[in-house]
Amino acid sequence: MQIVTTAKIRRDLRQHLSTTYPNIDFDFNASIEEANQALPTAEVLITYGEDLKDEHIERAKNLTWIMVISAGIDQLPAEAIKERGIIVTNVRGIHGIPMAEYSIAMMLQVARQTKTLIEKEKKHEWDRHVKMTELHNKTLGVLGAGAIGSEIARLGNAFSMKTIGMNRSGRDVNEFDQIVDYANLDTLLQESDFIVSVLPRTPDTDGLLDMSAFKNMKENAVFINIGRGNVIVEDDLLSALDQGEFAHAVLDVFDEEPLPYDHPFWTKPEITVTPHLSGISPEYQPRAIEIFEHNLSVYQRGEGQYQNLVDLKKGY
Amino acid sequence: MQIVTTAKIRRDLRQHLSTTYPNIDFDFNASIEEANQALPTAEVLITYGEDLKDEHIERAKNLTWIMVISAGIDQLPAEAIKERGIIVTNVRGIHGIPMAEYSIAMMLQVARQTKTLIEKEKKHEWDRHVKMTELHNKTLGVLGAGAIGSEIARLGNAFSMKTIGMNRSGRDVNEFDQIVDYANLDTLLQESDFIVSVLPRTPDTDGLLDMSAFKNMKENAVFINIGRGNVIVEDDLLSALDQGEFAHAVLDVFDEEPLPYDHPFWTKPEITVTPHLSGISPEYQPRAIEIFEHNLSVYQRGEGQYQNLVDLKKGY
Repeated sequence: MQIVTTAKIRRDLRQHLSTTYPNIDFDFNASIEEANQALPTAEVLITYGEDLKDEHIERAKNLTWIMVISAGIDQLPAEAIKERGIIVTNVRGIHGIPMAEYSIAMMLQVARQTKTLIEKEKKHEWDRHVKMTELHNKTLGVLGAGAIGSEIARLGNAFSMKTIGMNRSGRDVNEFDQIVDYANLDTLLQESDFIVSVLPRTPDTDGLLDMSAFKNMKENAVFINIGRGNVIVEDDLLSALDQGEFAHAVLDVFDEEPLPYDHPFWTKPEITVTPHLSGISPEYQPRAIEIFEHNLSVYQRGEGQYQNLVDLKKGY
Repeated sequence: MQIVTTAKIRRDLRQHLSTTYPNIDFDFNASIEEANQALPTAEVLITYGEDLKDEHIERAKNLTWIMVISAGIDQLPAEAIKERGIIVTNVRGIHGIPMAEYSIAMMLQVARQTKTLIEKEKKHEWDRHVKMTELHNKTLGVLGAGAIGSEIARLGNAFSMKTIGMNRSGRDVNEFDQIVDYANLDTLLQESDFIVSVLPRTPDTDGLLDMSAFKNMKENAVFINIGRGNVIVEDDLLSALDQGEFAHAVLDVFDEEPLPYDHPFWTKPEITVTPHLSGISPEYQPRAIEIFEHNLSVYQRGEGQYQNLVDLKKGY
């Protein structure tokens, strides 16, 4: 059995895998180009999910399982994979810890005016009058009340925030004080002081946050996008901030990444740009490989439950 | 009964007090100078605690209770107050919420290299390789395991941190996984990834963190001081950072405040300076007045327990 990686796996984890599974032929590559020669014999592929195209699936005649060690599966050649009945699993959920820490970090950064304080520090300026707010008792709205959204809400609860989540069903989710469905997005937007979107790229979420949505936000609201860039209508976001419909946007994901050098988001004072890093963590690969090993045992024994089996029809 | 303030109380709270207690003669002043004329008739003083001198206590012949609406009581004329048997209460504990949020904000700021990311944002630089760490599974040491320290630990626990506290008795405290006494400070320093000091200014705490203490810290440790500046030996702190004994210091309190313009702390990359703001909150006065009102009811009825009665002999 041959397992081929197109993702660069950390040396200590490569050694761990080779040692733990001596009967498996691991072919570790750092890119799809490097892996190309091994594709025809690969039974399992480990990938970040952004490099596979139709031609690779065609070439990988023996492929039966793709382990995507990221959460984003929107760039997979879905049709070709479905046609062949190839299993896809991903690592959604392991992003929960860094993405929740990112969310809280950014809420605190905006609430406490960190950029202003750092500027004043540079000028040796002792100014105790910079206006700061607390997270305590504020309302946190989370668009996408899945594993990651729940982890964000869990931390929000610890800060004594009221938490409202949005999901498709509108059914209650642990960690949230209240859940609304997509039809009641407005309620969430009207009540929240902080709004975090973890929504994936699907037809449902495309352009969900347009001018009418921004107009529903509180004047002091802070919006944080760590899901996918397609959720916002960029021009509407800029206009809404110009008009003071809400206070600040922290954007980690964009329609076009890297965000082009001359994109207006970079310079707008009411926008904070980070380079799609909310899910980055030094613990990322160890956590991903833990899920891989669980699924490998299910795959080999033919029994048990795969963790994070992906339904390509639903897109998540 | 006359209650005199030397602290500027928010207008809505002044109105609230005047309306709620029509039989009390409130004399609202914004400074000790403004209040000077009313001192001889004042039965109760509401002060931030930094403005009272021996002469004021002498002049305030009818004074029986000082309500300090801050936590710091080290600048009170303690001897004169003790001699007269004047009751002192303060608002320790209400600083817990903003100070705990400050602590988490600063841990995340350093762990996530916020200053670097903001610099790169200014240059429109999309760099996903800035090294970041998580709070998750790290160890948090808190010097001073009282009300504020416990609130910091409570939030640390939510981030799945291991929490070690230090107090005088070494007795267990809720919210902490482990408590050490002063004699075992080294254990706490050696094990902690993040160290927060909330220690007050007392003879015990003077110069507690000197070179030998800094040498006990982990190479990657982040030290945050939100207690009092006397706890650190400033020259030792600078040398310890030069020698790489630990990674970063976030300082909110100093021996001399405001921190002088040419103080080396301002410019050292391994130090983040904030202007004694960890306890500042828009909710501060409402919370302080809530405690005042509780104590006023105890004072008037002559029964019940004062909240935050201060023992001037112990200094807290």
